[in-house]
Amino acid sequence: MTDHVTTLSEILGPKGWLSGTDAEPYQRDWLNRYGVAPLGVARPANTAEAAAVVKACREAGVAVIPQGGNTGLCGGAVADQPNAVIVSLSRMTAIGEPNPESGSIAVDAGVVLAALHEALEPHGLMFPMHLGAEGSARIGGLIGTNAGGSQAFRYGMMQDLVLGLEVVTPDGMVWDGLRAVQKDNAGYQLRKLYCGAEGTLGIVTRAVLRLYPTPKQQTSALLVMSDFAAAVSFGVYLRGEAGEFLAGLEFFSDAGLALALKHLPDLAYQLESRGDVYLLVELASGSPRVPLDEILNSALEWGMEQGLVTDGALANSGAQRSQFWRLREEQPEGQRLEGEQLKHDISVPPGAIARFIKAGAEICGGILPGVRINPFGHLGDGNIHYNLSPPEGRADFDGKAGQFAEALTSLATEMGGSFAAEHGLGRAKIAMAEQNRGIVERELMARLKGAFDPQDTLNPGVLVHAPL
Amino acid sequence: MTDHVTTLSEILGPKGWLSGTDAEPYQRDWLNRYGVAPLGVARPANTAEAAAVVKACREAGVAVIPQGGNTGLCGGAVADQPNAVIVSLSRMTAIGEPNPESGSIAVDAGVVLAALHEALEPHGLMFPMHLGAEGSARIGGLIGTNAGGSQAFRYGMMQDLVLGLEVVTPDGMVWDGLRAVQKDNAGYQLRKLYCGAEGTLGIVTRAVLRLYPTPKQQTSALLVMSDFAAAVSFGVYLRGEAGEFLAGLEFFSDAGLALALKHLPDLAYQLESRGDVYLLVELASGSPRVPLDEILNSALEWGMEQGLVTDGALANSGAQRSQFWRLREEQPEGQRLEGEQLKHDISVPPGAIARFIKAGAEICGGILPGVRINPFGHLGDGNIHYNLSPPEGRADFDGKAGQFAEALTSLATEMGGSFAAEHGLGRAKIAMAEQNRGIVERELMARLKGAFDPQDTLNPGVLVHAPL
Repeated sequence: MTDHVTTLSEILGPKGWLSGTDAEPYQRDWLNRYGVAPLGVARPANTAEAAAVVKACREAGVAVIPQGGNTGLCGGAVADQPNAVIVSLSRMTAIGEPNPESGSIAVDAGVVLAALHEALEPHGLMFPMHLGAEGSARIGGLIGTNAGGSQAFRYGMMQDLVLGLEVVTPDGMVWDGLRAVQKDNAGYQLRKLYCGAEGTLGIVTRAVLRLYPTPKQQTSALLVMSDFAAAVSFGVYLRGEAGEFLAGLEFFSDAGLALALKHLPDLAYQLESRGDVYLLVELASGSPRVPLDEILNSALEWGMEQGLVTDGALANSGAQRSQFWRLREEQPEGQRLEGEQLKHDISVPPGAIARFIKAGAEICGGILPGVRINPFGHLGDGNIHYNLSPPEGRADFDGKAGQFAEALTSLATEMGGSFAAEHGLGRAKIAMAEQNRGIVERELMARLKGAFDPQDTLNPGVLVHAPL
Repeated sequence: MTDHVTTLSEILGPKGWLSGTDAEPYQRDWLNRYGVAPLGVARPANTAEAAAVVKACREAGVAVIPQGGNTGLCGGAVADQPNAVIVSLSRMTAIGEPNPESGSIAVDAGVVLAALHEALEPHGLMFPMHLGAEGSARIGGLIGTNAGGSQAFRYGMMQDLVLGLEVVTPDGMVWDGLRAVQKDNAGYQLRKLYCGAEGTLGIVTRAVLRLYPTPKQQTSALLVMSDFAAAVSFGVYLRGEAGEFLAGLEFFSDAGLALALKHLPDLAYQLESRGDVYLLVELASGSPRVPLDEILNSALEWGMEQGLVTDGALANSGAQRSQFWRLREEQPEGQRLEGEQLKHDISVPPGAIARFIKAGAEICGGILPGVRINPFGHLGDGNIHYNLSPPEGRADFDGKAGQFAEALTSLATEMGGSFAAEHGLGRAKIAMAEQNRGIVERELMARLKGAFDPQDTLNPGVLVHAPL
């Protein structure tokens, strides 16, 4: 056992330091593509311990890999070299008292998102962040990756929902930025900068988050759209007519629906007809006086008159609402069970979604004829999870993964979009990012990293290459 | 004429380089407290010229002071030394075509906010940023100061409304970050970092901004509240019952109302009774089916039953709505006409507004008995413009300006708030900021500045002291 491992285990005690087989559950990423065995896993009980760990690692020249719920899709929370320590905040799970008057709450970074949702429910308050991994994803990881999810178009991403932060810096100092106000211009917006920094500038240990009152009523509909252009047009109409109620606006394709129905036998599709594209619409209001069903029905009628909507139904119960949502939420699982896949996390300006999907299909079909394309995602912010399965009868992509990624990145970039919308870069997309960034952007990001973490202690090789 | 001035005038041509008396209108800040004569004012016609100016200034060791509409209240857009060039983007005023499908628009940084509002009107779109100075404030300055205004609690501050940026760096390079999507996690959130950086990290030359559909109906009410605690409670109730319609929630005091009525003879107060505190509520909706008046009336009745609201009226016309708003908006002008004043731009968690105002009154009365306090601002985000006039019969503050500022800063900080909510730091609050910042925050900010602008070319002495 090396000296610095002794130091770490002394700082943390037996509960706080895992090595050998105990560390294995932390070692690999969610998709099982990244991760080598680290020196161990540090599980600090509080901020002071987290800071001491970072300080000791820095002094020993050991890389520090912050890990939240380890649900990331880009391999940014596991080690790529043995001389590394994973810092998991899974023991720091305190949830403060919500402040209903101010609409805020202080939480430890290790809090699981679903646990926060549950804790808020009796208070009539909500934290408007919803995504597939909410049962495991932790607040610190959500901040580190600047998570988006299905309500981002209305309430924002994590960077919009964070009021204050506490962060352990790469030097092992603690920045106390735990203010609890939206309007704070007393210097650089550090609180925003740490969002999406993927643990390369510091480890978020605590946060003050913005809360909203829970809506008093909601209504959902599943719609069959004539095509993607129709979905975009209908989305624009809805934003104009019911923008302030819009709490969900998700799309998926018939290809994805078919995969989900094939692999998840308990899923049920309950409309009479199928189509190429589906839209899941959810409206919510704090006022019981708003005729939500009437507003949604009237929009639906308009959509049918315009030839945009070909079929559809409002959920007539909570159970049916859940079924509608499962059709959307089981898309990734359906595709995973189909076998090999390639995931791309694209965003384009919302009005360009249909154009992207059309052009993307041509490009991908050119690269590997018959490749199956399953685009689904968030219509309101243009976020397309553009996933591929091999052609029917094939098990792989003929070694063309890189070609797909490059072509789709170029297409999204040309349209003013991003090839890393809400999953981040991690290790999976760092080469692509460095290649895609302009020289000025590359330099600014490297300087930023260099200023905060000159020894490249925190999450080296993630988000940016070695600091300037 | 020095060599570098020749260089600058050659880069910019006669329209683009102002000196001597031509430069005077740019020299002093809005409150006429800061600004010495610079070498001249550079008015680049485009981004390339702006970059060339910065590069030339950097090489010559001349400070560059970016200036927008010069409406800032903290002296951050004028020179404090003669060896400086003011860069005004007032010639870069192109407004792109709005994209209604994507809800975005690209604009030059020199566009005046009111001009943007006007340009959007025929398209049924709005940019939800409203503040007193909108007739002169320019987009670049609003970004540099991370402006907030009266709708920030609903739509966010500038940092939440900026999708993409183009920025001239202190080296005279151009960062093209003009993407047009909300979800973009392909690296550090530079676009957020430049918001509120007060021109110390770069000059914003162009931006892609987020747009919203214009509401189809709105309704406003002026309410007399029994006290500040009642205003806070009523605000919490409104957020729960009508949160998604809430487009304005402004408060002011009877002290401020009296000053406005005294100095602006065309102002009219139309309710039957007065009180200590007033609330201006505005609801707006995209749906014509929402019974906005009914919702507001019902909230009002609830407030009266609870003893929170003592009087009130819904605006019965656009003209009356404007009169209501003027009562709030003329608060600064009324106080200015009263004579000497001290302005403080505080934010506290919204639920703590009443506590802050009570404690603030005790503290300020202790420092200078009889001092007149006029707090007004934005209830939804806890932003209090906490302004002071000398005691009746006195013309000044007996040299106690610093004491007030320090005491109020401590009070806001203790409450988890900020002493620089939406006006920024500029030159006026830099000493206070450095004193108030913890050692870690001070170091992080200095490193950030040092990484981007090691020669301290851009706006030296604003926001942070000299870089590390």
